[in-house]
Amino acid sequence: MLAVAEKIRNMEIRGAARIARAAAEALENFAKNYDGTDFIGDLGLACRALYGTRPTAVSLWNAIHSIVHDLEGMENEEARAVVIKRAKEFTERSEMAVERIGEIGAKRIFDGCTILTHCNSSAALATIIRAHKDGKNIEVIATESRPKRQGYITARQLMSEGVRTTLIVDSAVRYFMKEVDLVFVGADAIASNGVVINKIGTSQIALCAHEARVPFYVCAESYKFSPKTLGGEYIKIEERDVKEVVDPADVGNARIRNPVFDATPPEYIDGIITEYGIISPYAAYEIIIHQFGQKIMFEKEWWL
Amino acid sequence: MLAVAEKIRNMEIRGAARIARAAAEALENFAKNYDGTDFIGDLGLACRALYGTRPTAVSLWNAIHSIVHDLEGMENEEARAVVIKRAKEFTERSEMAVERIGEIGAKRIFDGCTILTHCNSSAALATIIRAHKDGKNIEVIATESRPKRQGYITARQLMSEGVRTTLIVDSAVRYFMKEVDLVFVGADAIASNGVVINKIGTSQIALCAHEARVPFYVCAESYKFSPKTLGGEYIKIEERDVKEVVDPADVGNARIRNPVFDATPPEYIDGIITEYGIISPYAAYEIIIHQFGQKIMFEKEWWL
Amino acid sequence: MLAVAEKIRNMEIRGAARIARAAAEALENFAKNYDGTDFIGDLGLACRALYGTRPTAVSLWNAIHSIVHDLEGMENEEARAVVIKRAKEFTERSEMAVERIGEIGAKRIFDGCTILTHCNSSAALATIIRAHKDGKNIEVIATESRPKRQGYITARQLMSEGVRTTLIVDSAVRYFMKEVDLVFVGADAIASNGVVINKIGTSQIALCAHEARVPFYVCAESYKFSPKTLGGEYIKIEERDVKEVVDPADVGNARIRNPVFDATPPEYIDGIITEYGIISPYAAYEIIIHQFGQKIMFEKEWWL
Amino acid sequence: MLAVAEKIRNMEIRGAARIARAAAEALENFAKNYDGTDFIGDLGLACRALYGTRPTAVSLWNAIHSIVHDLEGMENEEARAVVIKRAKEFTERSEMAVERIGEIGAKRIFDGCTILTHCNSSAALATIIRAHKDGKNIEVIATESRPKRQGYITARQLMSEGVRTTLIVDSAVRYFMKEVDLVFVGADAIASNGVVINKIGTSQIALCAHEARVPFYVCAESYKFSPKTLGGEYIKIEERDVKEVVDPADVGNARIRNPVFDATPPEYIDGIITEYGIISPYAAYEIIIHQFGQKIMFEKEWWL
Amino acid sequence: MLAVAEKIRNMEIRGAARIARAAAEALENFAKNYDGTDFIGDLGLACRALYGTRPTAVSLWNAIHSIVHDLEGMENEEARAVVIKRAKEFTERSEMAVERIGEIGAKRIFDGCTILTHCNSSAALATIIRAHKDGKNIEVIATESRPKRQGYITARQLMSEGVRTTLIVDSAVRYFMKEVDLVFVGADAIASNGVVINKIGTSQIALCAHEARVPFYVCAESYKFSPKTLGGEYIKIEERDVKEVVDPADVGNARIRNPVFDATPPEYIDGIITEYGIISPYAAYEIIIHQFGQKIMFEKEWWL
Amino acid sequence: MLAVAEKIRNMEIRGAARIARAAAEALENFAKNYDGTDFIGDLGLACRALYGTRPTAVSLWNAIHSIVHDLEGMENEEARAVVIKRAKEFTERSEMAVERIGEIGAKRIFDGCTILTHCNSSAALATIIRAHKDGKNIEVIATESRPKRQGYITARQLMSEGVRTTLIVDSAVRYFMKEVDLVFVGADAIASNGVVINKIGTSQIALCAHEARVPFYVCAESYKFSPKTLGGEYIKIEERDVKEVVDPADVGNARIRNPVFDATPPEYIDGIITEYGIISPYAAYEIIIHQFGQKIMFEKEWWL
Repeated sequence: MLAVAEKIRNMEIRGAARIARAAAEALENFAKNYDGTDFIGDLGLACRALYGTRPTAVSLWNAIHSIVHDLEGMENEEARAVVIKRAKEFTERSEMAVERIGEIGAKRIFDGCTILTHCNSSAALATIIRAHKDGKNIEVIATESRPKRQGYITARQLMSEGVRTTLIVDSAVRYFMKEVDLVFVGADAIASNGVVINKIGTSQIALCAHEARVPFYVCAESYKFSPKTLGGEYIKIEERDVKEVVDPADVGNARIRNPVFDATPPEYIDGIITEYGIISPYAAYEIIIHQFGQKIMFEKEWWL
Repeated sequence: MLAVAEKIRNMEIRGAARIARAAAEALENFAKNYDGTDFIGDLGLACRALYGTRPTAVSLWNAIHSIVHDLEGMENEEARAVVIKRAKEFTERSEMAVERIGEIGAKRIFDGCTILTHCNSSAALATIIRAHKDGKNIEVIATESRPKRQGYITARQLMSEGVRTTLIVDSAVRYFMKEVDLVFVGADAIASNGVVINKIGTSQIALCAHEARVPFYVCAESYKFSPKTLGGEYIKIEERDVKEVVDPADVGNARIRNPVFDATPPEYIDGIITEYGIISPYAAYEIIIHQFGQKIMFEKEWWL
Repeated sequence: MLAVAEKIRNMEIRGAARIARAAAEALENFAKNYDGTDFIGDLGLACRALYGTRPTAVSLWNAIHSIVHDLEGMENEEARAVVIKRAKEFTERSEMAVERIGEIGAKRIFDGCTILTHCNSSAALATIIRAHKDGKNIEVIATESRPKRQGYITARQLMSEGVRTTLIVDSAVRYFMKEVDLVFVGADAIASNGVVINKIGTSQIALCAHEARVPFYVCAESYKFSPKTLGGEYIKIEERDVKEVVDPADVGNARIRNPVFDATPPEYIDGIITEYGIISPYAAYEIIIHQFGQKIMFEKEWWL
Repeated sequence: MLAVAEKIRNMEIRGAARIARAAAEALENFAKNYDGTDFIGDLGLACRALYGTRPTAVSLWNAIHSIVHDLEGMENEEARAVVIKRAKEFTERSEMAVERIGEIGAKRIFDGCTILTHCNSSAALATIIRAHKDGKNIEVIATESRPKRQGYITARQLMSEGVRTTLIVDSAVRYFMKEVDLVFVGADAIASNGVVINKIGTSQIALCAHEARVPFYVCAESYKFSPKTLGGEYIKIEERDVKEVVDPADVGNARIRNPVFDATPPEYIDGIITEYGIISPYAAYEIIIHQFGQKIMFEKEWWL
Repeated sequence: MLAVAEKIRNMEIRGAARIARAAAEALENFAKNYDGTDFIGDLGLACRALYGTRPTAVSLWNAIHSIVHDLEGMENEEARAVVIKRAKEFTERSEMAVERIGEIGAKRIFDGCTILTHCNSSAALATIIRAHKDGKNIEVIATESRPKRQGYITARQLMSEGVRTTLIVDSAVRYFMKEVDLVFVGADAIASNGVVINKIGTSQIALCAHEARVPFYVCAESYKFSPKTLGGEYIKIEERDVKEVVDPADVGNARIRNPVFDATPPEYIDGIITEYGIISPYAAYEIIIHQFGQKIMFEKEWWL
Repeated sequence: MLAVAEKIRNMEIRGAARIARAAAEALENFAKNYDGTDFIGDLGLACRALYGTRPTAVSLWNAIHSIVHDLEGMENEEARAVVIKRAKEFTERSEMAVERIGEIGAKRIFDGCTILTHCNSSAALATIIRAHKDGKNIEVIATESRPKRQGYITARQLMSEGVRTTLIVDSAVRYFMKEVDLVFVGADAIASNGVVINKIGTSQIALCAHEARVPFYVCAESYKFSPKTLGGEYIKIEERDVKEVVDPADVGNARIRNPVFDATPPEYIDGIITEYGIISPYAAYEIIIHQFGQKIMFEKEWWL
């Protein structure tokens, strides 16, 4: 438990999907190995510890909530069993979700097309690789994705799968947009009014795609949708260590700012590919209500 | 001469303004030091050599043309004197131009405003520094400008002048646009219909500024305007060594593409600040005709 | 009953929320005080009388419908009890709705931000005042809102709560938009395709906000959503007494037109803040179906 | 059965609505007249045959699915009865749908307005004729709709109903848009993210209407919504016999291309008028889920 | 002289055209009546006094400059004669300009059209009245133009000329835009990149017209074009007495802001009607160079 | 003379360029063959006759004006010589212009690109054929261009030159826009604010190109620019014989409207290719002033 929490905190485990699954697994293990006397009480402590590692991560909250909701008043043993069961289900659904998204998204990728992707989204890559394996002749343009350059990982993954890939700097997106047929990116979180939070740079790629009438798709498992935004909360955008960008000493001690995500408005998004199908970003409200019900908005979590 | 040509070719001398001035100086020195017997003939060879180092650089062509036009049939000595005189004038006008642009542009920068700039444009920085020296309290956001990261030079220059500067990655432009009051960039070349060629990434910054109703200004000496575009030629956009981006081996041998410039359409530009004043990009035609006359369009240069 | 009807008709009671609550209260009182023998019949007459005072007011229809639907065939005494109960519930939900909207909307208002508001919406002001009470340092720009100048009331309310407020004429909205971080307005009615009907001027404010990428929120209780629009009806926009604008004699007997509301298209609206959470305007259909069911579209009210 | 299939294949029966109803009738007749011993098996064959005539027609798939879903394992006689019952219901609902759409849409058509329509949509014409019969003074501009010139049929139908109609070539849409108050068109199919597939030319009419702020409505029965798009499938756009356009010999043997439909993005559509009311195109997801449930997305039809 | 200066200062004389002509007349009278010994010196004092009354008025600077430029070193008597001659010419050209603008603009007004105008521009009204006198059947929608309500003057002028006029509040512009065929407004000043400065509210009218594809024309004599903007200066937008809006005491002592003008970007302007013909706003540079020459940009006026 | 006039009137001679050249030739022949005694008087009659055949054709007026301006008061013989000389020059310049436009425009056409063209413009085809002859591998998409189907002529011309050509109906432009790299069209006339008048349908093609960020070029000889628009005149758009579209009897006697041209706003035009080079449409004013001087605007032609 603590090990996982620490890895999330220090970003050894990163990315919305990986964090969610790590949390589910940690809770499953916590329940399996529990040998204390106050399971509910200790579970609450564990949840808070986990959650505290990245309180801005929507997928983390969603994973914990999915597994521990409505446990108040339950017997310890029953609660343990429930946690183990739900944690397994969460993990399975999460894996199934990526597979389904791959299957659905791949149908949008047509033979001979060029796809631009940003950063390193497992859901977006799943669709691309699936289309490639279906025998479609495709090309990918991958952005570098400064500061962490996850685009290099993307390029290596795609090349190793045999997908022809071109790497460009982030500034070159608009230059190459005329050669692009489709954009596929992932998501860290999605708000109730359809705004998508994803890796810094996503929103200007969406703007460039919109300007050139290139369809822009977001690949996102349903647990990326944020129920708390329904109740008015913003999804907080972290700023990380500025040395990820450059050592201030190298730029005359100029201030450096390093926000990790940005917000893409729904008007630039042609579809969100979820395990429930391709929806308009404006249907985010339904996806949230479907998963959590309306009451989620004002409810207080028992473990917080 | 050859030394300068070599430095332009190997990019020791880079940037439209620096190239133009180096060429003017090289021609001035060539004429001053000439001790052969066929000045015109040898000058033609020298011009071709210079021009061949960066045939896509509009400022280089303009500098050479300004200095050696209409020399055919002139006596050698007279021609030498003309070249020396014109080269000096070109250099002086070029320096005066930056100063005037600084003076004009600084008036657009108001107290308390935040300016975003891209890459490292001497004309754009001249306006910013001038405004700072005029006592205006300003802030600058400088983009990293991958792949060569000229934004670091910009940050260091501004910090050393005492201008508060924040450095961001290129992907973060849209994220920060809501804090920006003005965008100032330079130009490598300007086409007859108002399209501006500048450092890769400029056009998506312009798009983001336009989307958010932030005024976008281009600082450009008049010799950046391309007469050949009037006759239909495109300004060619070079692609440079891909290792400037990353070693292909590090990205699974993905293809890498590294275009240096991109094209910003005039509809996203609020004004071009030249030594002739602030004009709409749609007035590019007048600036070209004013400098070169209409005949430039189809004329063949004697030295080519 | 008649007194309330008269006050709605002569606009002593005005504003979608106040009208709805006054109608609920009037029906509650009507039922409580009823001493006749044909409650259902007389209730029908009362409903028609109430409704006739402002047949274009969506909130009035919704209030009456919520309270008296499906009473046909019920016993008089049972019906009376039902009416009393539902009227109370409507009033309570209506008050709760404003409170929830305030709570939700306040989370969107961040420290240091400037909010523009138009006319005098209790739901919009609830969010602003709530944010202020939460200790956020905010500023409000209030439009005059000709012809009735409800902006003066808004300014006085906000100033008395201690919120720093600036009043501007309606023509100055675009001029000040660059200083605005958020727009919050109310709604008189919302159509099934997401169009918002609100005080004249709202739609051009939304257009100015959209142009400048400033988020535009509508605060609206769910009973503002019009089920009849689902069936094709337009929301009728009244024109009121021209003397509210100016005496024709003072303008050379020019014709004067005085429409009260205008229609804002959903593409300019970033979110509608309801007691059910923040939704995209495109989710209006769900809100209507959720409240009234699909059959509302073609049903004939028994009391009409 | 075979006769109907043949007529669909050779386009004697054409148009999404007519195809759907012909299929329903064919299945009804098949079931009524069936005298074999393996009804389910033979029904499957019949469905495949019908479906094979126009596998790209969403309405055909929807009609068959609506009538034969979940028959696996049923007794032959029971299945026959179910098919007959559902086929009748489908036909009735389909007729009722057009009537309801007419009723709803007519309310959007105001006295004195000019409506532009394209091609020959029975649902769109139903609204126009209904408004005319309601006594509204209206005018229609009908496009020619090359290559098949269905606009001539539209013009004749409207003129015979007494509706003043003007015919224009397809190229003149933007020219006349300034005289247009409303656009009403039909749909062949609607995707889960709100994209509307309709007669070639529809999308540029929508673009012209959007440019001029003219409301653009699509009239579509709910069985036009494509559940398979939820699962990622594109709606395939057929290209038909090029001689519908011109004999290649008459144009120097130039290649001719003749796509039948195009795709209108939801951002240009103000409302879709269905028998369930006027919805935003972004509510397409709900209409699909409401009709088919979420499982439709991945299910395999038993008869395919 | 002083009387005129005082009237400009206290706004008895207001409006760019009236100020310019009053200044020309004042300088003419000053020269005619001069009986001192240092004409040039005293003229300089007079110019400064005049100019100081409204240093932000472009037309005032232009009028003075047109009349007194290049007088340095001239004999007193010669200078007096020059001033008288130029002042007369300025006045004549100014009157001719309005007439020509009326003549040109009237050709754009077609029979049966509805024109929206804002505030009270003599040049805009000249075109409208001219079209009316040419026998065209037209209608005008005049905005109130808060805070000074110059729309009432406009309405009275037009009604007294027999032009059918409708008065609306400023907030109703977008509501009525669908009935408008053309917008005609005046200008206080025009910048070198085509930005038009005019009465507060003009820019949001332009935005509404642009959104609805309604042509937007600015009527402006050539002396409205600001040569100083070529050199980078902004046109300063005054804020006037807040009591023009409302007494602060009536709005809970809220702050009130009262800017007089706003800036309309050239992209929303279809043409500027000057005495030199109808030009694109992007041709502002030529109009300035044509009138003043390029040197105006950096020159220091002798009298300042 | 009369024969040519008749051919223009009955449209045997059609197209702006052909009409202009036919007029020049007719005037040349008139002058050459003149054997009367009042050359100037008879020339005036001839000009009026010619002009009366198509008074809406800008190129016709420009051709006549270019040849007969300023002849008042000249001797008959001198005037005859002048007319012959100017007519020859006009014809030569007109031919040279198409050649230059071809040469300039061809440089914009890059290897491997697909060009969409509309109707049958000799200047646009000159650029395409020139590029093809320069060895560039290009493809053309030609629209049918209803009602006269000039696209068939275009397709035949291009195919006979060996240019791969695809013909589509006018409605399919937006559908194919994603495969288009460049649009090239001609012009009938160009207004002083940059509006281009060309074959009906041009403006919606421009809109589609703009939506998809595809460069849109107009090929136009300088005599297409209308000096009279500077003075406020609209370019009149003719409506021709409705039977060009369809026999009214075939469409239930619906009204048919058949406008020949439409107006493309300059904001959708990336460049106008003239014999003076590629200019922004906003430079139309300069082209007009350069050719005709400012006085043209109000002058009365002696021969009218």
